Amino acid sequence: MLKIRLLFVSVLLLGVTVVKAQTDNGVMRMDEFRNSSEREIINIPNVEGFQTLKCDFHQHTVFSDGDVWPTVRVQEAWKEGLDVISITDHMEYTPHSEDVAVDNNRSYELAQEMAAENNIVLINGTEITRGTPPGHFNGIFIDDPSGFVEDTDSDKDKEAVSKAHAQDAFIFWNHPGWKANQVDGSYEWIDFVDDLYNENMVHGIEVFNGFSFYKKALDWCVDKDLTVMGTSDIHNLVEHDYDLEDEIINRTMTLVFAEEKTSASVRKALEEGRTVAWASKYLAGKEEHVKALFHACVEMGDAHYSSKNDNEEVTNYYEIKNKSDLYFEMELQSGDATDKVILYPGSSQVITASGSQESLTYEVTNAYIRSDEHLTVNFELN
Amino acid sequence: MLKIRLLFVSVLLLGVTVVKAQTDNGVMRMDEFRNSSEREIINIPNVEGFQTLKCDFHQHTVFSDGDVWPTVRVQEAWKEGLDVISITDHMEYTPHSEDVAVDNNRSYELAQEMAAENNIVLINGTEITRGTPPGHFNGIFIDDPSGFVEDTDSDKDKEAVSKAHAQDAFIFWNHPGWKANQVDGSYEWIDFVDDLYNENMVHGIEVFNGFSFYKKALDWCVDKDLTVMGTSDIHNLVEHDYDLEDEIINRTMTLVFAEEKTSASVRKALEEGRTVAWASKYLAGKEEHVKALFHACVEMGDAHYSSKNDNEEVTNYYEIKNKSDLYFEMELQSGDATDKVILYPGSSQVITASGSQESLTYEVTNAYIRSDEHLTVNFELN
Amino acid sequence: MLKIRLLFVSVLLLGVTVVKAQTDNGVMRMDEFRNSSEREIINIPNVEGFQTLKCDFHQHTVFSDGDVWPTVRVQEAWKEGLDVISITDHMEYTPHSEDVAVDNNRSYELAQEMAAENNIVLINGTEITRGTPPGHFNGIFIDDPSGFVEDTDSDKDKEAVSKAHAQDAFIFWNHPGWKANQVDGSYEWIDFVDDLYNENMVHGIEVFNGFSFYKKALDWCVDKDLTVMGTSDIHNLVEHDYDLEDEIINRTMTLVFAEEKTSASVRKALEEGRTVAWASKYLAGKEEHVKALFHACVEMGDAHYSSKNDNEEVTNYYEIKNKSDLYFEMELQSGDATDKVILYPGSSQVITASGSQESLTYEVTNAYIRSDEHLTVNFELN
Amino acid sequence: MLKIRLLFVSVLLLGVTVVKAQTDNGVMRMDEFRNSSEREIINIPNVEGFQTLKCDFHQHTVFSDGDVWPTVRVQEAWKEGLDVISITDHMEYTPHSEDVAVDNNRSYELAQEMAAENNIVLINGTEITRGTPPGHFNGIFIDDPSGFVEDTDSDKDKEAVSKAHAQDAFIFWNHPGWKANQVDGSYEWIDFVDDLYNENMVHGIEVFNGFSFYKKALDWCVDKDLTVMGTSDIHNLVEHDYDLEDEIINRTMTLVFAEEKTSASVRKALEEGRTVAWASKYLAGKEEHVKALFHACVEMGDAHYSSKNDNEEVTNYYEIKNKSDLYFEMELQSGDATDKVILYPGSSQVITASGSQESLTYEVTNAYIRSDEHLTVNFELN
Repeated sequence: MLKIRLLFVSVLLLGVTVVKAQTDNGVMRMDEFRNSSEREIINIPNVEGFQTLKCDFHQHTVFSDGDVWPTVRVQEAWKEGLDVISITDHMEYTPHSEDVAVDNNRSYELAQEMAAENNIVLINGTEITRGTPPGHFNGIFIDDPSGFVEDTDSDKDKEAVSKAHAQDAFIFWNHPGWKANQVDGSYEWIDFVDDLYNENMVHGIEVFNGFSFYKKALDWCVDKDLTVMGTSDIHNLVEHDYDLEDEIINRTMTLVFAEEKTSASVRKALEEGRTVAWASKYLAGKEEHVKALFHACVEMGDAHYSSKNDNEEVTNYYEIKNKSDLYFEMELQSGDATDKVILYPGSSQVITASGSQESLTYEVTNAYIRSDEHLTVNFELN
Repeated sequence: MLKIRLLFVSVLLLGVTVVKAQTDNGVMRMDEFRNSSEREIINIPNVEGFQTLKCDFHQHTVFSDGDVWPTVRVQEAWKEGLDVISITDHMEYTPHSEDVAVDNNRSYELAQEMAAENNIVLINGTEITRGTPPGHFNGIFIDDPSGFVEDTDSDKDKEAVSKAHAQDAFIFWNHPGWKANQVDGSYEWIDFVDDLYNENMVHGIEVFNGFSFYKKALDWCVDKDLTVMGTSDIHNLVEHDYDLEDEIINRTMTLVFAEEKTSASVRKALEEGRTVAWASKYLAGKEEHVKALFHACVEMGDAHYSSKNDNEEVTNYYEIKNKSDLYFEMELQSGDATDKVILYPGSSQVITASGSQESLTYEVTNAYIRSDEHLTVNFELN
Repeated sequence: MLKIRLLFVSVLLLGVTVVKAQTDNGVMRMDEFRNSSEREIINIPNVEGFQTLKCDFHQHTVFSDGDVWPTVRVQEAWKEGLDVISITDHMEYTPHSEDVAVDNNRSYELAQEMAAENNIVLINGTEITRGTPPGHFNGIFIDDPSGFVEDTDSDKDKEAVSKAHAQDAFIFWNHPGWKANQVDGSYEWIDFVDDLYNENMVHGIEVFNGFSFYKKALDWCVDKDLTVMGTSDIHNLVEHDYDLEDEIINRTMTLVFAEEKTSASVRKALEEGRTVAWASKYLAGKEEHVKALFHACVEMGDAHYSSKNDNEEVTNYYEIKNKSDLYFEMELQSGDATDKVILYPGSSQVITASGSQESLTYEVTNAYIRSDEHLTVNFELN
Repeated sequence: MLKIRLLFVSVLLLGVTVVKAQTDNGVMRMDEFRNSSEREIINIPNVEGFQTLKCDFHQHTVFSDGDVWPTVRVQEAWKEGLDVISITDHMEYTPHSEDVAVDNNRSYELAQEMAAENNIVLINGTEITRGTPPGHFNGIFIDDPSGFVEDTDSDKDKEAVSKAHAQDAFIFWNHPGWKANQVDGSYEWIDFVDDLYNENMVHGIEVFNGFSFYKKALDWCVDKDLTVMGTSDIHNLVEHDYDLEDEIINRTMTLVFAEEKTSASVRKALEEGRTVAWASKYLAGKEEHVKALFHACVEMGDAHYSSKNDNEEVTNYYEIKNKSDLYFEMELQSGDATDKVILYPGSSQVITASGSQESLTYEVTNAYIRSDEHLTVNFELN
């Protein structure tokens, strides 16, 4: 049939009726098999008074080298429970141009109404796609990329970034180790980026991009006070790349701690570096944010039981709850207690600790605060 | 191998190591396939300052006609996220007695330590199992059922209940329509129960028992101020009877709104009738509790978007969130808005409403406040 | 990053490595979270010596009013286990033409190599999209739709179909009851189609289209010897419309009983009407094919046990196996046995039958052989 | 309610009705939430003309140190798709004896009728539970363990095994490395077992027991022509120990290649060593059986596509299908082709191979034919 333009909202309503197969005039509707279209809530508590927004600032569509129409990015965000997205088609790389007219504003325009209806904050963005080095940069919160530099001459690299900067973009360096930027095959902080940095023209770095974790980038963010970003950089369907049925797997994204779910609040939070990058099992960010996030999610109860062995040594029992949809692994650093704890999303575990201890220290081995350092947390025992 | 007695707590720790298969001395451990043993948190917010405890006060073991050792009931409760359980083996019906010595205290004794370690409140109970009529009654918070009446003479029916009452039991009438208690095949409020009621010897009724909903019992609870109960009455494995992988399906239970997670608080809440019975998709209870529970779980946002049609008529868009693991179906009662809404656990939907309305009224069609009446809720529009 | 063109085959190989997160030069790969890309085998036995091919002959892409790039249709087919697909973008309806250049051959061209690599038979097709009445017609096995009629004048309706016919297309009538083709709001066999039929220019009808079952169309197929078709008519992502995690739900498709998995064999089978339409729980087709399919899938064992009651009446026990990924519901028509049987995909049930019967007759209530008639099957008892 | 004794068969019938909630006389049935009770078919093809029976010959109940009533073992076997089970309660270890009367025949007696009704072959067995060394031995196909040795004196170890032997039991050595049987902490082939072996009183060894793989035992089986066994040794609920929702995870068991699904055929197959032990991802057995099983399950198609690169080098594409519910990982040993292939249950992959090769050799890295050797397989290319 013709695809009668379904406001996504009305798809939901259709999904909602859940009538059993009914016959009317020789047509039996089998809507019982239609997928329900609810928005899954990703459960992450507020952190220090801020809302934890789930954001993906790096995605592609058929308007550059992606595989889907822009509205699909909104539908995916809805279904997966994201709050904020940006579609960032490549400015200088449009391999579908034989079939799809190049227009750097179209993804945003086409997705806008569906995003608005479905309470998803859509931020205008683009990927500035230079050779490597220097590599690619996302400019988000831009007004209009139509006058940007599409010439790929390396001479124009800085001008290209400047165009976004001139529109007051929030700019981040994408997948810094995707290709080597050094002759020895490694990736390093390069002069080009250092220049941008000194002129306040780069504000964050992708520490996670899809299935890659650029560890050095985490140190750069910490040392230079840049914002830690995680993005999917999705080209295909999210569900083809990620097994979303697995409760631990989600598309790679940025958790942003914002005052409100608005574009302005997200901008402010990014500028102030209030983020943690999230890639399925892994978290990466600055210590203060990762720690605050952890403590918002995980809670140790008072001792609910004590036992004594034959030598009158007391063992206490504590329930430790992970109220969030994040995943945590912990290893005991000091104290005499259960040495490894895995906290699956929305679950709790019981740990034991020998009596007469006042606190326990655990290393959260899936949460990075530097390339070579995990978050360490302390639990008072009551 | 011999089953080395696994404190359940230590099973958890085993589950936690998640080592990949490793060989040591010719033995390769394949613990990667071992089920993890976390406690799933059933997400239901506090209701009017009370904790929402998930409780099942009616379960059986091999010590009457059930299929499992008492500790299994603790393990199931842990895994499924229950807070409070009672094992209520039949006093007068012990079909395994050829193999299992009859002792009405054994289930409780055998389950006690594992429950304590795992932070599950275990309440001593028994099922007083008389002919129908009058039927069966659970006495919970008892001290010791060993001197109870095991003689099944109908003469002794009242004496049997009195024994529990003498121990200050909280007593509820089980599955009142399981078998007809009337000659015409129906079930009614009977004189025997009326006597108990007048002597304050019955305090609640099972409105849900396993897969049965005794609708008349809901009216009796409302009219006579008895406590609304829901129980699994499980005999086999919970996982054999319920497809727990389905997010909407759970064992039938009672939600108790208690000050604390303690036996005393649960007792007080039951006495004060602070409960809602929960059977997968269905809820049943007194209006004030069902309504408070609903509003603790479901939240309507402010209008996040407005559109105008060609006649300048405004349509507003609202996101409605179900923050709980309960399920709700709503049908519009008054107002001009989306007429059916299904709220799956932990999800949201967008609804539309024509402008210039101040509120909407929905009927919550899966939530019963009387045998023939659903909960009605009102949403202010902002 | 730039999307390096992933042969889909190489995606698979990536998926295959399943390395645990490893760090190399500051980049940690997290491929452990990448979705594996195996092709799910839909288990349906051969039927009377023919292979049962899973085919979807009606799909859309961004080249008409669909939401995905043509290669996505190949990836979906791979993942879901389809053997044969056709992309049938609307000839006369191209709402994306502001952005996407109209070219009726492009979907086919762009999908071809990936289909070939992945062993999926791709059949060139188009949807001839006329007003209703007469409605839409798919022409598949065409050579080149570039010279087809794009003028939507009703005068040209027949010419449009003739263009496909001239290329020796297999032509079927799409969703015949999507919109009423009668003034009274009903849909009927219309003169336009009757003409085509008399000139052998229509060869099949969609009995299932997505979530609609056009029951009258089944009678027309039976009475006029047209081929029974089932198609998804998918525009969005298959996974957005169907909950593919549910073992009973699949995209609507046609099961084709073919000599080989080749385009020519499929063509021959379609011409000879060797099909059954499949929509999740439902099957529809001509009796001989539905019956042959059923018996290829379902098998009744010999009595494996007998019991006698106190009156010496014998009850026999039989295991009935559904070896396929189809779903069947059966109700007893004659005999004294278990009266309802549900056979989930890849499962068996035990039924009981009183002794001294030679056979049982069941109605297969989810399998239609006419608008008002289910398949009836007979089991010999041994 | 009283548990009316549910023949398991009638549970099935209940499950089958799938009525939506209906009210009758004030009772609403909510059977829509009841778990369906179909038997899952584990899909493993016949191997060299033999049926592949799924068997677990080592399980416990409340009659020794297990947690369930014997009928639960039958229900689990039904649900999981096992064909043959043995309940093997410990002869000399009955920690529940304070509550459960010791009777070594009761598990078998209590499970017998339900097994017969449900077409599950139940084999009488017991675990002869001596100190380590020598350790434990299962005797299956016994008549009556009531006169066996319950005295745990090491003097009586051989007499204990002899009792089973006298009843013509098939005897296997359980978890040979569970505890060290050597002073240095290792486990070895010991004199006691060597004596049994020389007197034909031990016929197999557990290579897999639950989550342990006794690699040395595989070599002993190969070198001494003993039968390779895999068992769950389950004490708790199978679903508590194994995450059965994961398609790769199943309880540890023995695949037996038997002429028929009868006790006699199973016995013969065990005597002739026709087994492969299966533990979720892993297989272990004698080369001939593992190889035959592999080739019954996995099938390489003819080249379905060829491509040429710029140097005119040909690459061929092949689809490789795993028709079974087993899992295989393969690494290329010789040839120029895709180097790693993972074959999930019921799925296929495409591999590529450079042209002009006649065959490819892969190592099946999850299939063991000796402690240090994987199965190697060869594929002819067409």
